[in-house]
This record gives sequence, C-alpha cells and structure tokens, in this order.
Amino acid sequence: MAPFLSKRDLQFQLYEVLNTESLTSRPRFADHSREVYDDVLNLAYNVADKYFANHTREADLNEPHVVDGRVKLVPGVQAAMNAFRDAGFFSAHHDEELGGLQLPWVVMQAVQAHFQAANMGTSGYPFLTIGNANLQREFGTPEQQQKYMLPLLEGRWFGTMALSEPQAGSGLADITTSATPKEDGTYSISGTKMWISGGEHELSENIVHLVLARIKGAPAGVKGISLFIVPRYRVNDDGTVGESNNVVLAGLNHKMGYRGTTNTLLNFGEGGETVGELIGEAGKGLSAMFHMMNEARIGVGMGAVMLGYAGYMASLEYAKERRQGRHASSKDPNGPMVSIIEHADVKRLLLRQKSFVEGGLALGLYASSLVDDLSTGPEEGRADTTLLLDLLTPIVKSWPSKYSQESLSDAIQVLGGAGYTRDYPVEMYYRDNRLNPIHEGTEGIQGNDLLGRKVTQAGGRGLAVLLEHIGADLSASEGLDGVADIRAALQTAVSQCQAAFSAILSRMAELGPDLYLANANSALEMLGHTVVGWMWLRQASAAAKALPEAKGDDADFYRGKLQAARFFAVYELPKVKAHADLLASADRTTFEMQGDWF
Amino acid sequence: MAPFLSKRDLQFQLYEVLNTESLTSRPRFADHSREVYDDVLNLAYNVADKYFANHTREADLNEPHVVDGRVKLVPGVQAAMNAFRDAGFFSAHHDEELGGLQLPWVVMQAVQAHFQAANMGTSGYPFLTIGNANLQREFGTPEQQQKYMLPLLEGRWFGTMALSEPQAGSGLADITTSATPKEDGTYSISGTKMWISGGEHELSENIVHLVLARIKGAPAGVKGISLFIVPRYRVNDDGTVGESNNVVLAGLNHKMGYRGTTNTLLNFGEGGETVGELIGEAGKGLSAMFHMMNEARIGVGMGAVMLGYAGYMASLEYAKERRQGRHASSKDPNGPMVSIIEHADVKRLLLRQKSFVEGGLALGLYASSLVDDLSTGPEEGRADTTLLLDLLTPIVKSWPSKYSQESLSDAIQVLGGAGYTRDYPVEMYYRDNRLNPIHEGTEGIQGNDLLGRKVTQAGGRGLAVLLEHIGADLSASEGLDGVADIRAALQTAVSQCQAAFSAILSRMAELGPDLYLANANSALEMLGHTVVGWMWLRQASAAAKALPEAKGDDADFYRGKLQAARFFAVYELPKVKAHADLLASADRTTFEMQGDWF
Repeated sequence: MAPFLSKRDLQFQLYEVLNTESLTSRPRFADHSREVYDDVLNLAYNVADKYFANHTREADLNEPHVVDGRVKLVPGVQAAMNAFRDAGFFSAHHDEELGGLQLPWVVMQAVQAHFQAANMGTSGYPFLTIGNANLQREFGTPEQQQKYMLPLLEGRWFGTMALSEPQAGSGLADITTSATPKEDGTYSISGTKMWISGGEHELSENIVHLVLARIKGAPAGVKGISLFIVPRYRVNDDGTVGESNNVVLAGLNHKMGYRGTTNTLLNFGEGGETVGELIGEAGKGLSAMFHMMNEARIGVGMGAVMLGYAGYMASLEYAKERRQGRHASSKDPNGPMVSIIEHADVKRLLLRQKSFVEGGLALGLYASSLVDDLSTGPEEGRADTTLLLDLLTPIVKSWPSKYSQESLSDAIQVLGGAGYTRDYPVEMYYRDNRLNPIHEGTEGIQGNDLLGRKVTQAGGRGLAVLLEHIGADLSASEGLDGVADIRAALQTAVSQCQAAFSAILSRMAELGPDLYLANANSALEMLGHTVVGWMWLRQASAAAKALPEAKGDDADFYRGKLQAARFFAVYELPKVKAHADLLASADRTTFEMQGDWF
Repeated sequence: MAPFLSKRDLQFQLYEVLNTESLTSRPRFADHSREVYDDVLNLAYNVADKYFANHTREADLNEPHVVDGRVKLVPGVQAAMNAFRDAGFFSAHHDEELGGLQLPWVVMQAVQAHFQAANMGTSGYPFLTIGNANLQREFGTPEQQQKYMLPLLEGRWFGTMALSEPQAGSGLADITTSATPKEDGTYSISGTKMWISGGEHELSENIVHLVLARIKGAPAGVKGISLFIVPRYRVNDDGTVGESNNVVLAGLNHKMGYRGTTNTLLNFGEGGETVGELIGEAGKGLSAMFHMMNEARIGVGMGAVMLGYAGYMASLEYAKERRQGRHASSKDPNGPMVSIIEHADVKRLLLRQKSFVEGGLALGLYASSLVDDLSTGPEEGRADTTLLLDLLTPIVKSWPSKYSQESLSDAIQVLGGAGYTRDYPVEMYYRDNRLNPIHEGTEGIQGNDLLGRKVTQAGGRGLAVLLEHIGADLSASEGLDGVADIRAALQTAVSQCQAAFSAILSRMAELGPDLYLANANSALEMLGHTVVGWMWLRQASAAAKALPEAKGDDADFYRGKLQAARFFAVYELPKVKAHADLLASADRTTFEMQGDWF
C-alpha cells in the first residue's frame, strides 16, 4: 500500500516554503522547536497509519446503518477515536491550561492532513468536534465552556454543526427551526436539520450540536438567526450526562462517497422537549458561524487536497511498478515492456496531479499560516492579513475541491481499468472528494462570495494586498535558475486578473448585482489558478535555492518541484486568459438564458 | 422521474441537422420513410422506459455476484433482454433476409441511445452481442455465420469481445493466450482474459466469445495475433448447444460504476480443452478487431453522451422544481424563494451540460451517418469519408467520455447535497461514465491515435476533408440571425488548430516519435472542442433557419439551441488556444520529467 502523503514534501512546505520554524520566536510558541513539530507530525503519521488507514475501505463498504435505533459504524472508528484522543490531538492547538500544546494552526492543519489523507470519513468525527470547540472557545461563556467545551477537548464528547434544513439547503436565510424562550433563560428548540455529519453515533458519551434557529418573534432573514448549544443528552449540574434531550434521528443519508462519516436528518423537539442554550448574541448566530467559516473552509480545502494527495501517491506507486507497452520510438516487439511511468501521457497525468495537490497543499498551509498571523503575528499587519485571508478563503475552499477531483480522475486514468475497480483506493477517493465542491458553501456560493463581497470589501484592499505579496515574490525570484517559466506565466496571469477585475468593477453599477455576478465562477477560476501559480512560484523559488547544494534524492526532489512548477506554468496558467476575458466582457449568455428555453 | 432523453432534440438532430430522411432515397432504405424511423424510435423509447429504466438503480445496488458457480443478475435484466429481442433490435440494421429491418446505422445508434440513457449497465449485454455479430458478418465464413451469428441476431445467444489480458492491459501486442492447431482445423485455446464484459451470465443459451490469441509459432507483436470464435458451450452439428467448452470464470471485477454489466476474468482451457475456430485470416486478428473499432468507439462515445444526457435531464427537472434563495438583486427576505433555475450559476451549470451533451449527441450521430455513407452513400465520396471518419473516431470516443463526466459533475452540483446521495440518479451516472475514458482505448491511446496516425495518414487528407466540411458550413451560415458568436469562435479555433498542426507536423522528423507525441492529449483537446464547436454551428444554423416560423415551445427550443451554441462559443471554444499553443511549441515538460523526480 502506498503512503498516504509525502513526509518529505510536508517538511519542504512547512520549513522551506513557509518558514514555520520562525513561529517559535512568537511568545505563544516560545517553548516549541522544529523538533517538537516534527515529533507531533511523526505521531500524527503513525496514528493515522495504524488506526485510520486500516479501515478506510472497510468503512466505505459498510456505511453507517441503524440497528435497534442506534447508528452502527465499523469497529475501527472507535479505536481510531481512542488513539486520536490518547495522542492529545483534540486539544493540541489550545492553551496549555486547557490541556493543549499551543500548537500553531498551521501545524495543527498539517497534523489533520495526515488523518484526512489516511481516512477522510473517520477524520470527520474529530474535526467536527474540534471546529465546534473552537466556536465555543470564541463565543461561549465561561460556564458554557466549562460545561460543553472541555469534554470536547478531552475527546469524551463529540460535536456537530447543524445549519441546513430540508426546505432551505444553502439558503440559510430561510431556516425555520424555532427557539422558544423558557423562564430559566434556556430555549425550547423545535425543527428539522439536514446534512448533519456525525449527528448520531455511539462513539462518545454525548454529542453537542451547534444549531441555528430563530427565536420566536425574530425578524425574517439572516438578522433573525441565533446560535444554540443543543446536547444530545442533557447535562447534569455535576457535568455528567443526563436524560435524553429529544434530538431524534429521522434518517441517514446514503451517499456516493464519504461513507465513513454518518450524515443525518435530525428532528429537534420530537416526542419531548429539546432544550438549548443561546451562544453568542441573539440575532448574530450566522455571523458567529461565519466567524469560524474561514477555518472551516480551509479545513474543507485541505481535506480535498489530502484526498487528491493520497490518490496521487497511489497512482505514482502503481505507475512505477506496472510494466506495459513500449516507447513510441521502440521498434522491437520482443523488447521488454517499460514501467508505465515512462510513457509521456502517464507522466503528464502524474505531473498534473503533482501540480494540483502540491499546489493545493501549499495554498492550504499558507492560508493556515495567515490564521496564525491573525492571532499571534505582529499587530500592525493584522488588518491587511484579515482582508487577505478573507479574499483567499473562497479559493482555498473551492480550488482544491475542484482540482483534486481532476487530479483523482487522473489517478484513476493512470491505473486504467484497475483504477475503476474497488481493488484500489483511487475510485473511493474520487467518490469521497466529489462532496467537497458542495458542502460548506457550494462552488457557486464561493464565486459569489469572492466577486460579490471579498473583491470589493474595504475598497479592494484585500486584492491589493494579494498583488503586493505576489509582486514581492516575483521580484525576489528574479534571476533564480529554473523559475523563468513560472515567473513569466504568473506575471501574465496577474496582469490578466487585474485587467479583468478592473473592467468588471468599473461597470458594477451599470450592470446591477445579477449581471455583475453572472460570471462569478470565472472570477473564481481565474484568481484560483493565479493564486496557485503563485504557490508554485514560491515552491519553485525554494527549490531553486536549495538545488545547487542538494544531492541524491534531495536533488531529485527539487528537480521535481521545478518541473511541476513548469508544468503548471505551461499547461495550466494559460487557461486564465479565457476566464479573464469572459469576466471582463460581462458576458450575458447565462444571464439571458430563460428556463423555458432548456 | 425525469425522462432520460429529449425526443424533441433527437428529432431535431436526425431530421433538421442531419437530414436522415434523405437516406430513404438510397436503394437499401427505399422501403423506409420518416414514419418508419419514428415508429422504431418510439418503440425504442417505450421498451427502454418500461424494461430498462425500471431496474437501473436496482442493478447498481445489487451488482452481479456468483451463486453456486453461476453469475446472478437482478431479474429485470432478463425481462429487458426478452423485450429487446421481441422488438427485433438485435438484428434491426441487418438485411431483411437475415430478419432485419435494414435500418441505417445512424437510426440504429439513435435506437441504442435510448437504452444507454435508460440503463447503461443492462444495455451492455445486447450491444456487445450486436458488435460481435457485426464482426462475424464482416469476417466469418457462411458456415460460421450460420452457426454462431444467426443465434446472436435472434437474441438467443449473446456475444463478447475478449482482448485484454492481465499482464498486458492496453498493450495488445503483448497478449500471450495461445491457439494450438488441431487436426480438424480448429484450435485449442489456452490463456487468461481480463475485463471481459458479459463474460458469464445465464441470460442466453450460449455465449460466443471473440478471442484474440497467438497461433503457436506466430511472430511476436501484433503480426502474430489472430482472432477466434470461442463459444461457452460447444455447438452440435444441428446448431444446438452441447457440452461445456471449459471457459472458466476466474473472478468478477468489482467496479465503481457500470455495475449492471458483469465484468469478468476468464480462463480458457482450464480443467479441459477449450476449442475455438479461427475467424478471418491468421495473423490479422487485430486488424479484424480494428475494422470494427470505429463503430465500437462511436458506441462508447454515444454511451457517454447518453449518460450525460440522462444526467442533464434529471438536473434540469430538479432545477425547475426546487425552490431556494433569491436573486442577488432581491432585498426582501420575506419574498418568495425562486426556482433555482433562476440563479445565474445554475443556468451556467445547465447550459454547460446542454452544450456538452447535445454537442456530443450531434457528433455521435454525425459520425454514425458517415458509417452509413461508407456502406450506402455515393461511391465517389467514400475514400474521403473513410479518412474523415478515421480522423474523427478518436474524438467521437474520447470527447464525450471526458465532457459528459464534466457535465455529470455539473448535474450533481445543480442538485447539491441531494445530488451526492443515492436518492437521485446523477451520482450513479457519474460513476458509470467514469469508465468511458478508459475502455475501448484510453484517452492516452486516442490522443496517440489522432496525432500519431490519423492526422498524418494519406498525407493529411482526413484533416483537409474535415476543414473543407467546416469551411462549407461556415460559408453556408453567413448572415444567419443569432449564429455570429459561434461562427466567429469556430473560425478562430479552426485557425488555431491549423497553425498548431502545421507547426508540429513540420518538426516531426526533428522531434522524433516520443517528443512528437508528448503533447498528443492537447491535440485531442484542441481538435475535439473545435469539432464540437462545428457541431454547434450546424445546430445553431438549423435553429436559426427554423426560428422565424416557429411558435410556442418550438420557438423556445430553437432559442435554447442558439443560446447553447453561444455558450459553447463564449465559454468553451476560447480554451482551444492554450492547447494549440502547447502543441505548437512541442513543449518538453512531460517528456523531460524523470520518474525519480516525482
């Protein structure tokens, strides 16, 4: 079985591209060192390899099902949760006084990457729990944190996010779950929530749902939405688990992939009262949820990256081992068959995967490092960093979701018929990843977020900051050996993006919101490829600097980085132009299409 | 449940774009009329709807499995086979004296399209049988046809194609299955065949395998390969089924999709002798197989089109019915939710699907009409038509395989989370179609076929013929209302293709075969999009001519065609340039990449 990620690449990304080691100069990380991070990453690799990768396919083939009213999972999931908890990963980024290691978020994301690559389905349970705890840490009262967050950090209870409803889907403004105030200050919650991952299982003593609902009498739309803590079992004053809170499993969703993560339809307030506590301010539930959205969306993007990464590793191993055919120039039918990695089109499929997944990994880790900068970086840069991260988030979420899928299609193609069978993992990764362009905001929502909100906010400062950073890296890389192609292609792409944004923004008022946003997807594609091109310039620059001194495998590694950067420059970045032209022209084709014409 | 195809579109494609009715002026089709074709197509729709569509998901969820040594399928498959047989479709394109209707191939493909759209898995059994019979019709002796082909035309026996072997995969030159001559002129067949669809089942009295093997002492490589008729059960002199021929089921493949079609590993000559008859000339087995390859590859392309088509229809229906969200310009949170088809990005996803699947359908039917021209068209054009069909075949096979997958991804995206569940068919189509870029020659093989063989054969005459045809349609469409965008974009794409081919062909000798072919995939992408752009010009021209007189639904239909053509012009054809530039530059990135650098 192929490894699920490349340790060498992760080291390169963290220490040679991002300079993660320098974080140790910040007070919060003063006790850390590269050795500490490496130990944590090695632990993550070993736990992921031993307790997560061991049941990935088994969980895919035996999806969660209901037995006697309880959701049954394959046994490996519980063992994985125990190992994850014993390793301390539920709380590793939290304060030491909360039992954490105060790990930087970028290292925490690198830790999580192992579990996503090893077993996406099983990793859903702890990651939802971590996200839930993060939100409580930001918005909960000390009492709420004591009561509902600490058990999550200890890995004793698990968490979910309950946003969507059957009638509303992505349109959260239209949710109807209600919260009726009770005399003791708590609320009686009633309604139905859809697509709740980890919504019911027996892995933990309790499940803490974070539920969006409307307090009776609240206004329509997003301003009437509040957020509530709703446990599966009520919690006694001593913190022990009490009676049922009447959150009823109404059904499981049966999905194409991601089968290891149970996904539920939940009824709140069925057959008895469901009690919830308001968390954060009334009417600000959606903004509390969105406060965590950057991190949640980076998490989805990283998940997509790691599925693609695992598929790349599997197809690379296959291509090296499988012998078939001969070079086009070979004339001897008796000659030995070559490894298929020798065939140009297989190299294309592998280089394309490499450029997508390593580019995506660089992007996800870069964005994670911005999260660290916001909490522990120099104060003076934070306003710009906030805008930059806001701008990048729709790309970090959607670009890997889309291009890991292309990458995984290429992985299947490398294996040919074998890749189409369940004897190899690539078809499963392909099914798993197809969720990522849908959940946590569809690709359409990301496009609207980018063009409708992020590009214009603060007078376009986020885009200006991005262009400054790219410009600085372009300048710094001038004259480096082997980076000319990616520099030139990136420069061209940046100019095309600037021209397109400038053209469409100048016509914003004239076009009106509907036509202005009609080609938002092109904005996402255009800027996404450009940003990943930038990530490749950064990687290529680091490789170019290291190559002259490198030997053996290390030299090969750097040459591979330069070649993948060149691939992205030559094969991928030229695609920016068509999107930029379309956006700039404010094309009316989709806008004018009528439903009856289909 | 949404219809699986649009009858209106099929009529448009056959009678308004292709002028299929004019075939009735050819002697072979003199007894036909449009009414005859319409009756046949209606029959196909009804049989497909009643006997095929009824168990598509059931067959997906209950894939073939072995019980007591026999392959067990869901019961609906047998009923479907009976209905297909009773409708006369096994022999509908054959001579009347063989029990056929002498249907043109293009009508036969349109018939098959219904079954592919309704149930791809189940349609595999008859279509393999039809392909097998077609090959016997071309290469079998009268005795062989009597013995092995007639029962296929009657739908009593079924057929397979047994080419691949575990150690050789796509590299057919390296197959090792052996054929030892026996005194009676037959052969003893021994070896293992992989990926044999329909290789074992209880649907028919017998299964006739067409098996590639090497006669003992034959030379290495393709010149040593012959083709054999190998029945599952030996055939008595009176044509009845006799004893086992020792073709042993060694295993079933468990696939991501296409689960309704059983796919097998077969051992020949295990536990007893397997007897086969040579069909066609010794040493010419591969060329016999490839003689049928144009039709087989058109069939795969059409299958891909129809999976995409069924997904498009399902997502269109969903988009019209599902209400969610409001226009970007809407300010009232209490206003009614709109059908999601109102959202620009959903219209984009639907228009993109429409442009892919209707463009693909036009291409598949056009190519099928060329097959008719080769057998019943004017003698003087056949040499050119042969070259044109040869050139188009890799595109007809690979373009829909790839772009139906993108289309189906868009279909899932329209449905959002619902599309990711097994409650709707789109995730199944998506899994099913992922096979199409792999079987009957991978995308890599199609690229090499196009650039390495078809573009250069007969001094490039095939390409010249294609450009003449496109040029004629460009001229004929000048001044038509509503086709300016597609005309301009197609003209540009054609120029880019010409420049790129001219650049790479002029350096062929200098580059050598390996580097010349290194970017063959770009040739496939570039010419593929251009050819489909041409198909959209043809459709747009037909629509533009009809629109002024059209009313109501018909007018909407034509407006939709013009808008989809515009979409392909504006969103898709600009992608040709990046591929053309890459091909023209003879880029060395993949060629120079080393296995150790990954």
